[in-house]
Amino acid sequence: MVETVWPDGAAYVAGRYMRVEEAAIPITDWGYRRSDVTYDVVGVWGGAFFRLEDHLRRFRNSMRALRLDPPESEDQIRRVLHECVRRSGLREAYVAMDCLRGTPRPGSPRHPSSCRNYLAAFAIPWVWVMPPAMQERGAHLIVAKTPRIPEACVDPRTKNFHWGDLTRALFEAQDRGADNCILLDEAGFVTEGPGFNVFAVTDGAVATPDRGVLEGITRLSVAELCAELGLPFAVRPVSAEELVDADEIFLSTTAGGIMPVSRIDGRILGNDRPGPISARLRETFWTKRAKGWHATPVEYEEAEALA
Amino acid sequence: MVETVWPDGAAYVAGRYMRVEEAAIPITDWGYRRSDVTYDVVGVWGGAFFRLEDHLRRFRNSMRALRLDPPESEDQIRRVLHECVRRSGLREAYVAMDCLRGTPRPGSPRHPSSCRNYLAAFAIPWVWVMPPAMQERGAHLIVAKTPRIPEACVDPRTKNFHWGDLTRALFEAQDRGADNCILLDEAGFVTEGPGFNVFAVTDGAVATPDRGVLEGITRLSVAELCAELGLPFAVRPVSAEELVDADEIFLSTTAGGIMPVSRIDGRILGNDRPGPISARLRETFWTKRAKGWHATPVEYEEAEALA
Repeated sequence: MVETVWPDGAAYVAGRYMRVEEAAIPITDWGYRRSDVTYDVVGVWGGAFFRLEDHLRRFRNSMRALRLDPPESEDQIRRVLHECVRRSGLREAYVAMDCLRGTPRPGSPRHPSSCRNYLAAFAIPWVWVMPPAMQERGAHLIVAKTPRIPEACVDPRTKNFHWGDLTRALFEAQDRGADNCILLDEAGFVTEGPGFNVFAVTDGAVATPDRGVLEGITRLSVAELCAELGLPFAVRPVSAEELVDADEIFLSTTAGGIMPVSRIDGRILGNDRPGPISARLRETFWTKRAKGWHATPVEYEEAEALA
Repeated sequence: MVETVWPDGAAYVAGRYMRVEEAAIPITDWGYRRSDVTYDVVGVWGGAFFRLEDHLRRFRNSMRALRLDPPESEDQIRRVLHECVRRSGLREAYVAMDCLRGTPRPGSPRHPSSCRNYLAAFAIPWVWVMPPAMQERGAHLIVAKTPRIPEACVDPRTKNFHWGDLTRALFEAQDRGADNCILLDEAGFVTEGPGFNVFAVTDGAVATPDRGVLEGITRLSVAELCAELGLPFAVRPVSAEELVDADEIFLSTTAGGIMPVSRIDGRILGNDRPGPISARLRETFWTKRAKGWHATPVEYEEAEALA
């Protein structure tokens, strides 16, 4: 059994384990050079994965959509994730899995189908998309002028690194003194923000966009919590007007859970604090997490390196 | 003076020279993880850069558009490119320069403005987007069903790795037995293909799209050649119908020059060979290149490593 503990993070690239600082993508690789890659991120909290099988299922669907096929089986991918966390020794971790296109094999055509795809993964200390203090006061958002890349061009359900629109919108937010941003599609409907889904609460009912968005695993958890708490929940088009006029807004992401919003485009929601439904969902989410909801304990002891 | 010759390619990453095989991007870097990076590619043919200053100008504009600011001055970037080619010893080379966002500095907000940007570059043996034999017979193209990412989302004039739509279209082409593909915008106008600009020739006049495209340096050269040869040349909207009904189609790219097309969506153009105007432009292009047109000799002897 490998005993090494790498608290700054452990990684796996194409069959080999290493410290995360050593994990790198060749500069000529199409995973970087054409952003021809899909990924997923699963959280570890209190020594357990949250909804590991849901993330593995989504990752498999993403790879299939892009015709990516790494040598590792799904069971081997699962073991790689356990092993990365185990080698890091972390109890709270951000665990990423990437499948990259690679580069065309020598002598073959310069076509993505000629490439040897491969898996990379890593576990690093937990990352907050928004720090807890920002979640306590509620995030200050803008509705960005930059539209989200249409799903006909790049499907947001296939998790991807095409963040040019999101990055541009993050600069818009900074220029306007806000923390973060929400992007609309070209028809003016709400999509998502950089790494999170969006929810509008009006008259006690929760709504989240049905199109142009990643089908977030924490978004799925929000649906389950609403059912449990008896809150009406709908997945449907949400216009920019509905969002800005909502009683409450909150966000969801693997790297942060349920994150309340207190301002949108300068408008103060409620009393400039997280709304009561947002706060209740957030509290319930973390209480249930602490009790082992959808948890898969990390195999800190038993796991073995992928042969 | 450094004497090492790395014929497989020489690279520079954040201040250090290395073999291209060693050049890599950290797996946690936003240049990879958010495709938050711009780049440019200049060709070296017969020991000389082609239009080096035009590529450096475009790279500077791209960095400015994305608010990227590497530590190297423009003169230092120029010297890095010479030095990469010199260390490779290559007379025909594909020379790339990337400026990456980096990762947020410890303790700073997770915002792109908190990152330390850096330069990477490499020279590798010449790459043909389409091999010469394909250029001789004319490429077989399709008009892809996948639309190009709109310029309101990600500006194609800022050269970028957001290739998800292009990659999907390349699979469409393969599925339909074609060599390559052209993408339309959402209004049905021609944009570009994976790494090249597109030209339609009708009644002896050449037209190329004015929107949704990279302002290619070889495209600029086509404009100059048309002026020299007395061919009418227009930069204007080109509909899919105009393209498919054109007398001739050709493509332009740094990594291939002027590339004739002989089939589009199964339709045979002319006599299934490169059209006369396309062939003449291609021949004139390479004849002028051989005579030193827009050439900057690589400093194989004089260059010194960036201090």
